[in-house]
Amino acid sequence: MNMEVLFLGTGASIPSRHRSPACVVVRSGRDMVMLDCGEGSQRQMMLSPWSFMRIKAILITHLHGDHVFGLPGLLQTMGLSGRTDPLILRGPAGFTHAVETMMDLFQGVRSYDLDIADVGDGETFAVGELGAECFATVHGVPSVGYALRAADRPGRFDPDAAAALGLEPVDFRRLQQGERVRGIDPAEVIGEPRPGMKVVYTGDTRPCGSLEEAARGADLLIHEATYSDAEAGLAEKYGHATAGQAAAAAAAAGCGHLALIHVSSRYDDGREAFLAEAQAVFPRTVMPDDLQLYRLGRDGFRPV
Amino acid sequence: MNMEVLFLGTGASIPSRHRSPACVVVRSGRDMVMLDCGEGSQRQMMLSPWSFMRIKAILITHLHGDHVFGLPGLLQTMGLSGRTDPLILRGPAGFTHAVETMMDLFQGVRSYDLDIADVGDGETFAVGELGAECFATVHGVPSVGYALRAADRPGRFDPDAAAALGLEPVDFRRLQQGERVRGIDPAEVIGEPRPGMKVVYTGDTRPCGSLEEAARGADLLIHEATYSDAEAGLAEKYGHATAGQAAAAAAAAGCGHLALIHVSSRYDDGREAFLAEAQAVFPRTVMPDDLQLYRLGRDGFRPV
Repeated sequence: MNMEVLFLGTGASIPSRHRSPACVVVRSGRDMVMLDCGEGSQRQMMLSPWSFMRIKAILITHLHGDHVFGLPGLLQTMGLSGRTDPLILRGPAGFTHAVETMMDLFQGVRSYDLDIADVGDGETFAVGELGAECFATVHGVPSVGYALRAADRPGRFDPDAAAALGLEPVDFRRLQQGERVRGIDPAEVIGEPRPGMKVVYTGDTRPCGSLEEAARGADLLIHEATYSDAEAGLAEKYGHATAGQAAAAAAAAGCGHLALIHVSSRYDDGREAFLAEAQAVFPRTVMPDDLQLYRLGRDGFRPV
Repeated sequence: MNMEVLFLGTGASIPSRHRSPACVVVRSGRDMVMLDCGEGSQRQMMLSPWSFMRIKAILITHLHGDHVFGLPGLLQTMGLSGRTDPLILRGPAGFTHAVETMMDLFQGVRSYDLDIADVGDGETFAVGELGAECFATVHGVPSVGYALRAADRPGRFDPDAAAALGLEPVDFRRLQQGERVRGIDPAEVIGEPRPGMKVVYTGDTRPCGSLEEAARGADLLIHEATYSDAEAGLAEKYGHATAGQAAAAAAAAGCGHLALIHVSSRYDDGREAFLAEAQAVFPRTVMPDDLQLYRLGRDGFRPV
């Protein structure tokens, strides 16, 4: 099954006329997950084709303002809009305390339950049928990244093979449900289970082994790339990655596609050159704009 | 001297595709004051002709999210942008605690000093050459409004009257500086001091006497009008005003002009009828859109 990725905020640290701070929404079937929630994310979502009321979980990578200052407003708006579905909230150490403190400071309407918790390296949880796993990142403050994986799907049924074995269409459904029929095992006519798609979101981080491990075999890696390779010193100093480093991680982890976000506004006038640095290392790299919706399938990762 | 008013956010409670939450910027010469700071105000300002770096003071009316969730991001961005000028911050009881708590939760870059204080009814302070006075409002939580007044200017010098009295151009400057020349008192050739323009901003409130008192003789009253007159019951219940109530306050206080903001999105499809309710009571009423810049002069209040 395809997944869809909506880039609501692709800016870094300081928003600009053209870029809102960090916020990406991943959808797999009915399961919609928001990754980071920079200031203005609720209004960005109002400008998109998707409803913020469908979000099942908001996962925060770290407590720097450009990744979290949109959260109190969105929680408030969900309440004012009459949400009753519970909302999953996860973030690194200190996250639950920060959210509860803000709720105490600014009295808001809340018509729904929060399932809120701090998470760390290796922790797993479910968002509907999506499995989420946290991994450690390195950014100078408590921080995590998130790997999302859609549920595996059954293997493909081969009607020709089934017919050749003397089975008839009336038998097919029972076989597909895993039943043995007329001495034929389902495995004889059904292929290997098809693994669900995997999307990995880094948040802010310098290159690190835990990220590369978490990204292994991901169909899509959404990686921060604050600096160009010429500014590797700044990236190191501030706990960020360069375009080339993000691409190296995607290549080393054998990812299907790479999307760069959190690109500093200093590169607004040289985005093609910036992207080229990454593509030289990992060709299947894109650099989405705010409000672009992409579809991720076995056939590629493209704007819708 | 004219004043200018930039409407950055004219929406109520929940932002919409077209309206950001509460934020208005008033400028008088070099003195720029932001009134309320809903989520996204920094980016709205980036879309305007004015720089957020020129703001001297941010005055918050109350701690509901739609009036304050843009503040932490703006403070952070000012720091990241290298601001060194001190910034005046005022808000109602609990404001200083809320801002300091947020700064502790979300480590930000701060390169400048904050002059921060809680304020209440009747308190005064200066923003450059602007005088500010707080007044009590009624909204169910600690809340204040703000009256801003530009400094008075000297009266107009009358060169014909001076010549008729036998004075020569060489004397004019000394007279204008208040000096008595050749037995002539400056008052004989200079008119009454011209009072500076006065702008009053209510924040959220139901109608109240302290507001009407504070608005007396204002050149411009910027009044919330969350509901139409048909919903006066909701306005009363939630501590808001209707269009007609805002207009009645402007009329009773003898204001020059009225600008309605914080209009509920439920009236997006009937804004002319909404405005007409106010204009029936107080004809010089406008209902600005986001990012509209108005000029306030003795000759009127009009979009630039």
